[in-house]
Amino acid sequence: MARAFLIILDGGADRPVKELYFRTPLEVARKPMIDRLACEGACAIMYPIRPGVRPGSDTAHLAIFGYDPHVYYKGRGPFEAAGLGLDIKPGDVALRTNLGTVDDKGIVVDRRAGRYFSPDEIKEIENIMREVCEQVSKEFGVEIVYKHGTEHRGALLLRGEKISHEVSSNDPHKVGLPVKKIEPLVKKPEAERTAEILNRFVELASEKLRKAEFNERRKREGKPPANIILLRGAGVLPEVEPIYEKFKIRAAMVAGIALIKGIGKVLKFDVVDVPNYRGSRDDDFDAAFSTAVQLLANYDLVFLHVKPTDAYGHDGDPHGKINIIERVDRALAKVFDKIGDDVYIMITCDHATPVKVRDHTGDPVPLLLWGPDVQTDECMKFGERPCAKGVLGTVLGMDIMYILCNYMGKLEKFGE
Amino acid sequence: MARAFLIILDGGADRPVKELYFRTPLEVARKPMIDRLACEGACAIMYPIRPGVRPGSDTAHLAIFGYDPHVYYKGRGPFEAAGLGLDIKPGDVALRTNLGTVDDKGIVVDRRAGRYFSPDEIKEIENIMREVCEQVSKEFGVEIVYKHGTEHRGALLLRGEKISHEVSSNDPHKVGLPVKKIEPLVKKPEAERTAEILNRFVELASEKLRKAEFNERRKREGKPPANIILLRGAGVLPEVEPIYEKFKIRAAMVAGIALIKGIGKVLKFDVVDVPNYRGSRDDDFDAAFSTAVQLLANYDLVFLHVKPTDAYGHDGDPHGKINIIERVDRALAKVFDKIGDDVYIMITCDHATPVKVRDHTGDPVPLLLWGPDVQTDECMKFGERPCAKGVLGTVLGMDIMYILCNYMGKLEKFGE
Repeated sequence: MARAFLIILDGGADRPVKELYFRTPLEVARKPMIDRLACEGACAIMYPIRPGVRPGSDTAHLAIFGYDPHVYYKGRGPFEAAGLGLDIKPGDVALRTNLGTVDDKGIVVDRRAGRYFSPDEIKEIENIMREVCEQVSKEFGVEIVYKHGTEHRGALLLRGEKISHEVSSNDPHKVGLPVKKIEPLVKKPEAERTAEILNRFVELASEKLRKAEFNERRKREGKPPANIILLRGAGVLPEVEPIYEKFKIRAAMVAGIALIKGIGKVLKFDVVDVPNYRGSRDDDFDAAFSTAVQLLANYDLVFLHVKPTDAYGHDGDPHGKINIIERVDRALAKVFDKIGDDVYIMITCDHATPVKVRDHTGDPVPLLLWGPDVQTDECMKFGERPCAKGVLGTVLGMDIMYILCNYMGKLEKFGE
Repeated sequence: MARAFLIILDGGADRPVKELYFRTPLEVARKPMIDRLACEGACAIMYPIRPGVRPGSDTAHLAIFGYDPHVYYKGRGPFEAAGLGLDIKPGDVALRTNLGTVDDKGIVVDRRAGRYFSPDEIKEIENIMREVCEQVSKEFGVEIVYKHGTEHRGALLLRGEKISHEVSSNDPHKVGLPVKKIEPLVKKPEAERTAEILNRFVELASEKLRKAEFNERRKREGKPPANIILLRGAGVLPEVEPIYEKFKIRAAMVAGIALIKGIGKVLKFDVVDVPNYRGSRDDDFDAAFSTAVQLLANYDLVFLHVKPTDAYGHDGDPHGKINIIERVDRALAKVFDKIGDDVYIMITCDHATPVKVRDHTGDPVPLLLWGPDVQTDECMKFGERPCAKGVLGTVLGMDIMYILCNYMGKLEKFGE
């Protein structure tokens, strides 16, 4: 039975980069394996949501998995929480958290507090947060849980009566600006109360973090202290049909970051952890690809998520992005002979994160589909420009699962 | 006044075929006339429904004629019935029928009972069915009519109180499986009663067919007997605006098979019969094209349907498909000089029926548009790969009528 291997290079697509002589990281990267697949397969350009619409990684992945984000997206928080292993239930409100750095005047100077924390530091952070959660719990009569993730990331879960996800973020989203107050987004007592709970949580956490020993150490070492917690993406769990029911396929996922793992868990992929694969710049792509290929023996669809292409886009570093693309290419080449002849490989991006923009854009992204019976075309290279010549034309993120299931022979006919 | 000539090669698109050195029937067929139109005109790839979605010929044609099949498709049966000249009315339930062959254990061994029947055999079949209909009519107090079509095909019409189209098929859709029982698809008395009526019809028809003289003759001649009737595509007439109102055009249709003729009749095309044009492998394309070109004198849109490309796809025969494409090309070439300068010609497919898959797929299909003012592009040949370079880009089936009416100058402006 035909199977599919779907690889997403998060934020991999780009715009012409001056220092690359107006080519893109995907166009200049040395990636003979991926380019061979483009040569032998069919290409397209894909708009993850719609042309011009700037996707988040969450909405883009929902669309790519066949779930209309306009219907199913109710905030990023629940996916982050599920991805970190929090047992989120219908009605719970969840938020994505960042540890950040503010100066004495409350101005954000680093939205990631230097990004890197030692295991001991994380232990201290978790202890502090436990105390904060206990106190807020007592004050408001709600259950509240913090779970730390990788680097500066975490999730916060609220459970109880009269809470709402319709609250704003305290994250100014730019350095040089003060931390915001969390506000209710609607005039409802639940939203007002939730804003109050969260503002109290932020206040208490800052107090305790400022006094924490590990932050003194960080300052001595010239590292930015983690003295603020930034909350965003408040949301509730969407009601979704599991992917195995929607498309009648068994689906597995290999991903490093909590957001994507959480989407996988909510949609009922089997989400597989790979050691040293956490969405970091030093991710072990060999381990990820070899796990993915093993999974192909037992699943119809194996999904592999590559994060650091996006991180280098946000950092504005084209060479970092190129390096990740080249490492992914070598990792795929190493396992390629173990991928069966009946496997369709699709490679694309969830959105562009152009190094010049340093954020997601609504640009088209390249897509390739390789496998038995796939039409070949004039696209001989995987990249933003060459793929525009592809025989699959212009498709949307929401088409991806249908295209894969069409080739796998997993779709019912519509009509006769 | 500009006019349009729309030619659909049913199931004409394909995937690379090994024995054609990984080219497609459209790519290898010698079709100088059609390729000249591609050279001189504008090309595109078209997804009949949406990328990846596998269309039936019915849903695809509805979309191509501008009627969203998600809204207007309520089963294939009514189109088959209308196409065979049955006077189907709102509320009637109609089904497509096949004569098939079962063995002694009720296992389907040929879903088409050899496909070919002599005129005398068809007369006998019609007599038997008339008796069966009369008896079922009496037993259940409903009107029931069978109409035989070409080869093994026919339609069944039910009229009366408390009937429903929400019933399953008895066709296992594969040989080697037993005939199914028709079941209600919803828990409604109407659906339960309709299933009962149809199961009784199948039972009585089998009884009488088994004993029929012509079947004894067929067995002696080594032909599969027609000893079962397979019912599918139960449906009711959709409420549609006639095409002449929707697009303000007079439309004529030349088609061989009942399904397409029926769609034409329901949408209020003038459906023209052409002798020796029945959707068979020996269709008289010269007659069909010459009729179509005559019709262009009096109609804004003339639609011509070519069936056997699809039949050869289902048979897995690339050479048969190539042969049909070449015959169509010659037929078009013969009448080309009689087609006025103000006529737009569009050629496309309602879906792919790859010879390797032997069924419809959700692949893109090539499209060409030729005529006055049409943008030319780099596509120099009509085929799956070349058309991907077309200046019309990627379009959907639902766009076709708008594209044609745009060029014909028949569209109101949206806004000012």
